[in-house]
Amino acid sequence: MRASRFLAPTLKEAPQAAVVQSHQLMLRTGMIRQVAAGIYNVLPLGLRTLRKVETIVREEMNRAEALELTMPVVIPGQLWQESGRWDYYGAELLRFTDRKQGDFCLGPTHEEVITSLAASEIKSYRQLPMNLYQIQTKFRDEVRPRFGLMRGREFVMKDAYSFDKNADDAQASYWRMHEAYTRIFKRCGLDFRAVEADTGNIGGSLSHEFQVIADSGEDAIAVCERCGYAANVEKAELRASETQVCADVSIDEHLTPEKGSIESVCQHLGIEAKAMIKCVAMMGDGEPVLALVRGDHDLSEPKLRALLGVDLLVPATEQEIADRFDSVPGFIGPQGRPADLQIVADHGVAAMGHGVTGANRKDYHVSGLCHGRDFDAQFADVRQPVESDGCGRCGSGRFRFRRGIEVGHIFYLGTKYSEAMNATVLDENGKAVPLEMGCYGIGIGRTAAAAIEQSHDHQGIVWPVPLAPFEVHLLRLGKEAEVSERCDALYESLLAGGLEVLYDDRNERPGFKFKDAELIGCPWRVALGRRGLEAGQVEVVNRSTGERSDMDFGDLVSFLCGEILPARNPLL
Amino acid sequence: MRASRFLAPTLKEAPQAAVVQSHQLMLRTGMIRQVAAGIYNVLPLGLRTLRKVETIVREEMNRAEALELTMPVVIPGQLWQESGRWDYYGAELLRFTDRKQGDFCLGPTHEEVITSLAASEIKSYRQLPMNLYQIQTKFRDEVRPRFGLMRGREFVMKDAYSFDKNADDAQASYWRMHEAYTRIFKRCGLDFRAVEADTGNIGGSLSHEFQVIADSGEDAIAVCERCGYAANVEKAELRASETQVCADVSIDEHLTPEKGSIESVCQHLGIEAKAMIKCVAMMGDGEPVLALVRGDHDLSEPKLRALLGVDLLVPATEQEIADRFDSVPGFIGPQGRPADLQIVADHGVAAMGHGVTGANRKDYHVSGLCHGRDFDAQFADVRQPVESDGCGRCGSGRFRFRRGIEVGHIFYLGTKYSEAMNATVLDENGKAVPLEMGCYGIGIGRTAAAAIEQSHDHQGIVWPVPLAPFEVHLLRLGKEAEVSERCDALYESLLAGGLEVLYDDRNERPGFKFKDAELIGCPWRVALGRRGLEAGQVEVVNRSTGERSDMDFGDLVSFLCGEILPARNPLL
Repeated sequence: MRASRFLAPTLKEAPQAAVVQSHQLMLRTGMIRQVAAGIYNVLPLGLRTLRKVETIVREEMNRAEALELTMPVVIPGQLWQESGRWDYYGAELLRFTDRKQGDFCLGPTHEEVITSLAASEIKSYRQLPMNLYQIQTKFRDEVRPRFGLMRGREFVMKDAYSFDKNADDAQASYWRMHEAYTRIFKRCGLDFRAVEADTGNIGGSLSHEFQVIADSGEDAIAVCERCGYAANVEKAELRASETQVCADVSIDEHLTPEKGSIESVCQHLGIEAKAMIKCVAMMGDGEPVLALVRGDHDLSEPKLRALLGVDLLVPATEQEIADRFDSVPGFIGPQGRPADLQIVADHGVAAMGHGVTGANRKDYHVSGLCHGRDFDAQFADVRQPVESDGCGRCGSGRFRFRRGIEVGHIFYLGTKYSEAMNATVLDENGKAVPLEMGCYGIGIGRTAAAAIEQSHDHQGIVWPVPLAPFEVHLLRLGKEAEVSERCDALYESLLAGGLEVLYDDRNERPGFKFKDAELIGCPWRVALGRRGLEAGQVEVVNRSTGERSDMDFGDLVSFLCGEILPARNPLL
Repeated sequence: MRASRFLAPTLKEAPQAAVVQSHQLMLRTGMIRQVAAGIYNVLPLGLRTLRKVETIVREEMNRAEALELTMPVVIPGQLWQESGRWDYYGAELLRFTDRKQGDFCLGPTHEEVITSLAASEIKSYRQLPMNLYQIQTKFRDEVRPRFGLMRGREFVMKDAYSFDKNADDAQASYWRMHEAYTRIFKRCGLDFRAVEADTGNIGGSLSHEFQVIADSGEDAIAVCERCGYAANVEKAELRASETQVCADVSIDEHLTPEKGSIESVCQHLGIEAKAMIKCVAMMGDGEPVLALVRGDHDLSEPKLRALLGVDLLVPATEQEIADRFDSVPGFIGPQGRPADLQIVADHGVAAMGHGVTGANRKDYHVSGLCHGRDFDAQFADVRQPVESDGCGRCGSGRFRFRRGIEVGHIFYLGTKYSEAMNATVLDENGKAVPLEMGCYGIGIGRTAAAAIEQSHDHQGIVWPVPLAPFEVHLLRLGKEAEVSERCDALYESLLAGGLEVLYDDRNERPGFKFKDAELIGCPWRVALGRRGLEAGQVEVVNRSTGERSDMDFGDLVSFLCGEILPARNPLL
């Protein structure tokens, strides 16, 4: 592509509203332009990269035997009423009425449409397993759209839905998608982790996020340095510490007036936080549960929720603490609680010989409290990990914390939607059973943005070959006819070699062209001016390593083909 | 693709709501399923064909040096207010507010967004010509969505917009698109005509529709059987008949009580319609104009509007006929009209020696009225053609009428949008001039539907090779292991030959499979059962010609490759 015939309007400065690097760089390179908050034009340069992501996704979904279709952007409200989400989804679901006053919404996700389709078109177990996907525009009316394509309102997403006749098959489908996603992000040339994730409100019991590792990521990930196990920090499984038997200490009561926090009690009593037992009063689906963690640890609500098997887990109110825990906020202890109160303690508490905790009356704490002797509890892994904690999966590695950007998310859904929308198949015995489902999403634009977050420097983007809008940026330096002719010939020979070339044939100064090339970040830069012409050599620079070399004209195409063609698909 | 792993749910009968063949056949083959009125899921079989249309469109747009981008589905109302269309567009523009009460609409077309982008990103004539296009979802809230993908509410369209520095260049861009469209529809394997069209309300002065010829088409087209000139019937240029000089007849007045129509006057006076001069009182941008055509002809309003250069052309009211024409509805004549009344007469009137027309008083007509002697008029081509009329372009051919389906439409827009939205560039002299624009649309789904309307029989679709969802439909007849093995081998060898194969490996009866194959309409059907296996031959049928042959296994791939590969691109 000749730059003189292209539209990639570069900017020296990004608008102030752009705070993350990928947003700034997408604006500065002319990949995108904002139309309204969270709504963008994707200009030709940006579209080239998005199409590469799409193509990789499509090829790997097809390889996994998923079938591509498209569902509408505009969805009748009736389907959302059937699933129950019409009232429940919140303001991100943009609702409106058509000219005939029918209820419609812009699809933020397509479980309803696909389940309705499956209900009418999948009739027999013989059609299963089936996995249907689309690459389609979605809309979520985010209250604070930000970060460009990273969290827009209108965005392109690949969403897939698997259908199976039973839970075992559905989990096999789930793992097939796990493998496809792994291939997809490897092929994109990204450093990522498949991270065990909380299933949150979407239901189901199995979920992974695919997180691109980047310091600017919004999500915290714990990665075991030994076995590679990775999980959302809230979910990372910890190695249980050794249980200590009760120490031979007596229980003493201490006056701790107005000292309702761990910090203030420690200061007052002159002890360390890890000598305390922190007591957290929670309500799980309306039932009280007292959670204990070591004083310097934090409770993981997702772990506790999963352990209890409850949907709604919230802190107890002061009134509930009085009525159901028979205690006082800031001064709760596990000892002598009502017999029907469920007490869950983290393994870290089991490893304490004794501890300091609340006395269940205002302004008093007790010391020397021992598990087994003074209180009973169910011990489990219910705390948040901290860096260097032991990995619960391999039992011997330690966790390192990383930041990640979620680019893909897979869920085993079970029968939540199929039951609500009556999507059944006949099984081998001719009995109607609800379809077992999974859903699987990849943000196309977000993947491109994450690639930039992961790989850029102060001059611009550093594209991995598989996602680069162009593989080679050829710069013509100077306007002399001989230079132009030689550059034109190099351009044609690079194209003939099957490479994707952006040819800067504009009448601009060399410095301007070099800056644009660094900014746009094609993997290879080739420059030729009068000096090079006289020497019979072009300058070739690798954007990633910064390595420069001068190369005879005749060697250029075979060298670049040798570097670029194998790099297009890191899996080959 | 193995049919056992595919989702193409065929139906014996189409729902009653589907009245046109393409809608029925798209439903029956399982290409589409309705989600709401005018809103569809495109299932895998349908998507394969739509993607082929898209690919052809994209390749030819790129070849014409247009640049692909994407603009959003959800458009801020503010841009439509700037262009003036927010108030003007009508109920097809689906408007709504987002969670912050901002005005938005679903884009039915993207002139506003692209002009706004051009205003900020195209700054110099050096960037021109530029043509930007997208293939994107659009929404028009049609009052009566119908005919499946032919006239849906949500649909995929390729829309392109050209930008030039002056009208000459803009017209060159226009003709470049005319050529690209011609290549596109040829490559689709369609019988079509580029038809001169009325520019209607969109403005501009140059427009062509690309009409796929089909008996079921909604549009009437006049095609010259000699020179190939084609136009929307309303616009087709007619050869002027020879002018007759005034006959030596006197004017006689006739009492024609209550006879205000051509038919009733003819009956009353015992004359033929072609002996009458029909007078039509119109208001063009508020000024009266009297249009005359021969009694058996009809006025073409688009021709008259173009001749007068007016935007709004409407019939005069009774009051206006009295005030501005000084006449009476049903009894108007051109003779003795107010001096400032513009009179336009069709050439057909010039060819009449004399005629019968209204007497300008109630219940009276006159006969023997001669042009030149009794009234003056501007003679022009302002009537609607009828079949066998002489072609005005070559002067010697005759028009045949055909029915067409509009699949593409190109417009030279001029500066309508660029002036409203202040989109200017600096010209060679550093002066800001408004961008000259053109816009160019192709309905992707409608093109696929039109292909079906043009090519089907009572058993199903007859796909042209370039748009067929699969090129070969391989049928396994019977369940014997030997037959299965041989069919599997044939399937693999056809795939290895680079052909697109739908392999019916389901455990269904032969009759059922044959019916599905006829319905889906792949260009080539290959069937093998026990008998064929014993004879060492497959049956090969051409869906279009019905030609059958038995062929040795070893000859199949090279035969089909020889037939299909060259047919993929009719332009090569």
